[in-house]
Amino acid sequence: MRNIKLTIRYDGTRYAGWQSQKNGLAIQDVIQGIIKRITGERVNLIGSGRTDAGVHAEAQVANFRTKSKIPLEKLQLALNSMLPRDIAIIYIEEARPKFNSQKSAKSKLYRYTIMNNDYMDPLIRHFAAKCFYKLNIGLMKKAAKYLVGRHDFRAFKAVDGEKKNSVRTIKDIKIEKDGDLVYIYIEANGFLYNMARSIVGTLVEIGRGKIKASAIKEIIAKQDRRFSGPTMPAKGLCMVRVTY
Amino acid sequence: MRNIKLTIRYDGTRYAGWQSQKNGLAIQDVIQGIIKRITGERVNLIGSGRTDAGVHAEAQVANFRTKSKIPLEKLQLALNSMLPRDIAIIYIEEARPKFNSQKSAKSKLYRYTIMNNDYMDPLIRHFAAKCFYKLNIGLMKKAAKYLVGRHDFRAFKAVDGEKKNSVRTIKDIKIEKDGDLVYIYIEANGFLYNMARSIVGTLVEIGRGKIKASAIKEIIAKQDRRFSGPTMPAKGLCMVRVTY
Repeated sequence: MRNIKLTIRYDGTRYAGWQSQKNGLAIQDVIQGIIKRITGERVNLIGSGRTDAGVHAEAQVANFRTKSKIPLEKLQLALNSMLPRDIAIIYIEEARPKFNSQKSAKSKLYRYTIMNNDYMDPLIRHFAAKCFYKLNIGLMKKAAKYLVGRHDFRAFKAVDGEKKNSVRTIKDIKIEKDGDLVYIYIEANGFLYNMARSIVGTLVEIGRGKIKASAIKEIIAKQDRRFSGPTMPAKGLCMVRVTY
Repeated sequence: MRNIKLTIRYDGTRYAGWQSQKNGLAIQDVIQGIIKRITGERVNLIGSGRTDAGVHAEAQVANFRTKSKIPLEKLQLALNSMLPRDIAIIYIEEARPKFNSQKSAKSKLYRYTIMNNDYMDPLIRHFAAKCFYKLNIGLMKKAAKYLVGRHDFRAFKAVDGEKKNSVRTIKDIKIEKDGDLVYIYIEANGFLYNMARSIVGTLVEIGRGKIKASAIKEIIAKQDRRFSGPTMPAKGLCMVRVTY
C-alpha cells in the first residue's frame, strides 16, 4: 500500500469544515469522492486537524493509503482538474508507511486577519474579519506573551460539555500590522475547538481597551469560557503550516 | 457646489464594468444610487476610466458635484454602510472645483496577475488568470521594452470599428515573479478598449515561446489586431493607481 501525502489549499467559505459530518458539505468528503472516481477506492483521508466551517487553509496536510499505481504527478493533475475551484492540491508526495497527518504533526500554525477600519476591504472580505475599534497592538503583544507556553486552555474552548484534556502548548504568537490589516499568527502543538478564534477575540478585547493585558493570566487560571473574549468569525482564520 | 473625490476599491466579479449601460449592473450605477439615497441628488459620478466587466480596482478614482453639506467622514461612513460588500470607498476628499477624475488624470496603473502553474490557487481565483505553460520572464521583459513609449496601439485594441485616435504613451511596464505568480504592471496616459489585456496576452505568447520578443515591434507597426496575442480574462486585471 502506498501512503500519499497531500498539501491542500482551500477557500472554506462554502464548506461545513474539513471533517465529514451529517449536515453540509465537508472538504474531506469532496476530496475523498474525487479520489474514489480516480482510483475506484473508498479511502480515508486523514487531515492534520479539523478546520471549522468557513475557515480557510493555505496548506492543510492530509494522507491516504491506496493500492493505485498512478504516478504522483498524474494523480495531482487529475485531482486538480476534477476538484471544485475553491480546493486545490498544491503539493503531493509519497510518505513513509507510518506517516499520519494528524498524529505525526508536531505543531500547526494559524493566521487570523483583522481589517482594523470602519469598512471592509472588498478584495479580502472572505478572508478577514472587521474590527471597527482602533486596536492597540502593543497591548495585544503584551497579552500574547502570557498565552505562550503550556497551559490548560479550557477558558478558550467552545462550551461543548466534553471533559477531555485541554492542556496545550502555544509555541509562539506573532502580531503584525500592515496598514489597516492586523495579522495574528498562533503556533501550537494542538488547538481545542474554537481555541484560535477565542484567543483572537480576547486579544481584540485587550487591543480595544476593554480588558487589561495582564488580566489574561487570570482568564487562563479561571478556566472558564465566560471570562475570555468572543469567538471571532471563521472567515478570518487560515491554517498556514503544519510542522512534522 | 462641492466637488467630492472618491477613491474606490471593488471586486468587479459580478459587475458589468464601471460604466452605466443597458445590460447588467454597473459599479457607477450602484454608487450613484446610494448617493441619491443619502443626498437626494441624482449625481453624475465621473470615473477616471471605465473598467470592463469582471475587472477589479484597488483604487479607482471618481468625482461628483453636490449641494449636500454632509461632512466627508459621515458621507464615507454612510456610503460604506449602504454599499454592497464588494464595493468600498477607501478615501474621500474635497477636490478643487475644476477637478475631473477622467480629464485631470495624468496616468493610470494596472496590474495583471497570472498564476503560472497547472492549477489555480483557490484563494486568489477571482483575481488571477491561469497560464499552464512555463513563462520565460526574461523574454517578456525584453518584449515589454519595445512597448514603452508613444505608439499607435491599434494592434492591441478590441476590433470595434471605431476610428478614434489610438495613440497612447506607455510610461512603464514592470514584470515581477513571486513563486508561481507573475505580475505585469502597465502604466500609461490612457488605455484603449481591451489594450491592457491584449498586451498581456501578447507578452504571454512571447513568454511561452510562441512569438519572438523582437516581433513586438512589427506587431505594433502593422496596427492589426490579428497579429497580437489573445485578450486575457478580465478577472486577472486590477486598476491600482491613478496619478493626477
